[in-house]
Amino acid sequence: MAAGLIRLAHGSGGLLTQELVHSLFVRTLGDEELSRLLDAAVLDHSSALQAGSRLAMTTDAYVVDPLEFPGGDIGKLAVCGTVNDLAATAAQPLWMSAAWILEEGLEIERLRRLVFSMKEAAAEAGIRLVTGDTKVVPHGLAGGAYIGAAGVGIIPPGRDVGPHRIQPGDAILVNGTLGDHGMAIMLLREGISMDTPIESDCAPLNGLVEALFEVGISVHCLRDATRGGVGAVLCELALQSGLGMIVHEEALPVREAVAAACEILGLDPLFVANEGKMVAFLPASEAERALAVWRAHPYGRGAALIGEVAPGKPIVRLRTTIGSERQVRLPAGELLPRIC
Amino acid sequence: MAAGLIRLAHGSGGLLTQELVHSLFVRTLGDEELSRLLDAAVLDHSSALQAGSRLAMTTDAYVVDPLEFPGGDIGKLAVCGTVNDLAATAAQPLWMSAAWILEEGLEIERLRRLVFSMKEAAAEAGIRLVTGDTKVVPHGLAGGAYIGAAGVGIIPPGRDVGPHRIQPGDAILVNGTLGDHGMAIMLLREGISMDTPIESDCAPLNGLVEALFEVGISVHCLRDATRGGVGAVLCELALQSGLGMIVHEEALPVREAVAAACEILGLDPLFVANEGKMVAFLPASEAERALAVWRAHPYGRGAALIGEVAPGKPIVRLRTTIGSERQVRLPAGELLPRIC
Repeated sequence: MAAGLIRLAHGSGGLLTQELVHSLFVRTLGDEELSRLLDAAVLDHSSALQAGSRLAMTTDAYVVDPLEFPGGDIGKLAVCGTVNDLAATAAQPLWMSAAWILEEGLEIERLRRLVFSMKEAAAEAGIRLVTGDTKVVPHGLAGGAYIGAAGVGIIPPGRDVGPHRIQPGDAILVNGTLGDHGMAIMLLREGISMDTPIESDCAPLNGLVEALFEVGISVHCLRDATRGGVGAVLCELALQSGLGMIVHEEALPVREAVAAACEILGLDPLFVANEGKMVAFLPASEAERALAVWRAHPYGRGAALIGEVAPGKPIVRLRTTIGSERQVRLPAGELLPRIC
Repeated sequence: MAAGLIRLAHGSGGLLTQELVHSLFVRTLGDEELSRLLDAAVLDHSSALQAGSRLAMTTDAYVVDPLEFPGGDIGKLAVCGTVNDLAATAAQPLWMSAAWILEEGLEIERLRRLVFSMKEAAAEAGIRLVTGDTKVVPHGLAGGAYIGAAGVGIIPPGRDVGPHRIQPGDAILVNGTLGDHGMAIMLLREGISMDTPIESDCAPLNGLVEALFEVGISVHCLRDATRGGVGAVLCELALQSGLGMIVHEEALPVREAVAAACEILGLDPLFVANEGKMVAFLPASEAERALAVWRAHPYGRGAALIGEVAPGKPIVRLRTTIGSERQVRLPAGELLPRIC
């Protein structure tokens, strides 16, 4: 029995650590550089780098509760979060690292599922898991497992996206329904079941972003809408760009089940976390073409034009069908702890 | 009062998160790229990369208990650990990331000290803290704070170190006394005070490594001796190189206070964690010169030649002054949990 659980000694750097690393991480992930087990991965970048390209580096801590949920788990989440942060800078993801903090008592079979799921998501996104670390903390001190993930990617020459490029008149697009991830987690945690089950939208979006560049769309800014949802992204970008944003309430894509669940829990889907949603700013004249490209992609079927950038005060305004407006404000308080 | 403590809302992605990130992390760390607060840092590498150079990437999770200790804290530790892992591949550290997992109730002043200490260590090592993340977990679920750190460095053309280059006859060097970090933590945790206080050796060793390359020493392999100590490093490298190692017991540098403390706690300093010790393998003919270079460096004053590589079975043998030998084996059980 005890052999099936993580013990403190698995994190001590001794024989049990070696065994865990070899039999579980190296065997499951199977990356050649990872399997060399050096303190750092050594990577030949010559084929990836050209003159004028830049490197992008990102990190996130993953503390989602529970570890496994409809549509994903913490392993898949760590890969998708890393890939999407890189994609949001127009980078092509190349390498990533995972530092695991395991809790004494975690079932090793469960850990194996999480690592396997990490491997599958990485394979889909085309990112290599090249280095990692494992620590074990005493029972009760880590909610099962946490992951500190980091990623490195390359921005091809000529690509320049960011809040500094947002312009008045830009169209604001999102690639699908809002709040699926956050509500999937919340319902599971609260023990509420809906007639239509809600799954997390957790997905690697680098292909979706590349699709825009491939057809020559002049993308101005990209941001993946995780913690704080699309609402937080827009409020942040309004401040960072110094421009106003108008959002059309009826254009916001929200699943019926998510809307109903938000109603029950008193939440606004605009501020609920996603793990597979990218917000894109681009010239209005290219919006239709961009929408068509996204709708043809598996992760963009529900893509929608949700608003536009306006001159004036750097605030976000929500416009309703009857023409009334209200300011969208970043919530100060606790939204959804441990949602990612 | 409550204003001085980390709350769950600090991790929600809302206003309090923004405030914490700006007032604490960005202001303290002051890196230009970090302060842009994008999902990923975008880095111009053109000045750093030359034809034939390679990238190195590393990660570690830091879960040390307690968060502050004589000679360092978790912030300094995360920087030194990252820098030393890069230096062990002969890379020059360039960029790093820190993903913080904060526990509800952590004093914000304490967090500020940890971040400041991170900044100081990074400045000393010449590594830039370019991106980060902050999550908050409920009280009791993170022992104060954990950090997932990752780093990227560049290996200049022509450098090739690793277990594959270790050869029979190679000298084995270490840059100073063994077990200082582990014993500093253990004594603090056990509430034992010694006549001579023991401080952690936590230090960034990239300068020490560069010093060897600068004078043209043919370094074959480097490994920083953290969890599991110098003993674990030697056992691992014996296996990875397929060669035997002989260690001379009387040559092992150990502080008197550390030896005494190890005696009390029943530990072998050879297997106690360090955070500022590098093991180097190089041709015996260059050992004296390498020792002189290290002894002239602030982090190498206690440098010693501790053994040599021998043909034959890939095991580590400890030779005593009277000529007897015993095999050094990796301990299977719990060494020192949460030592780094």
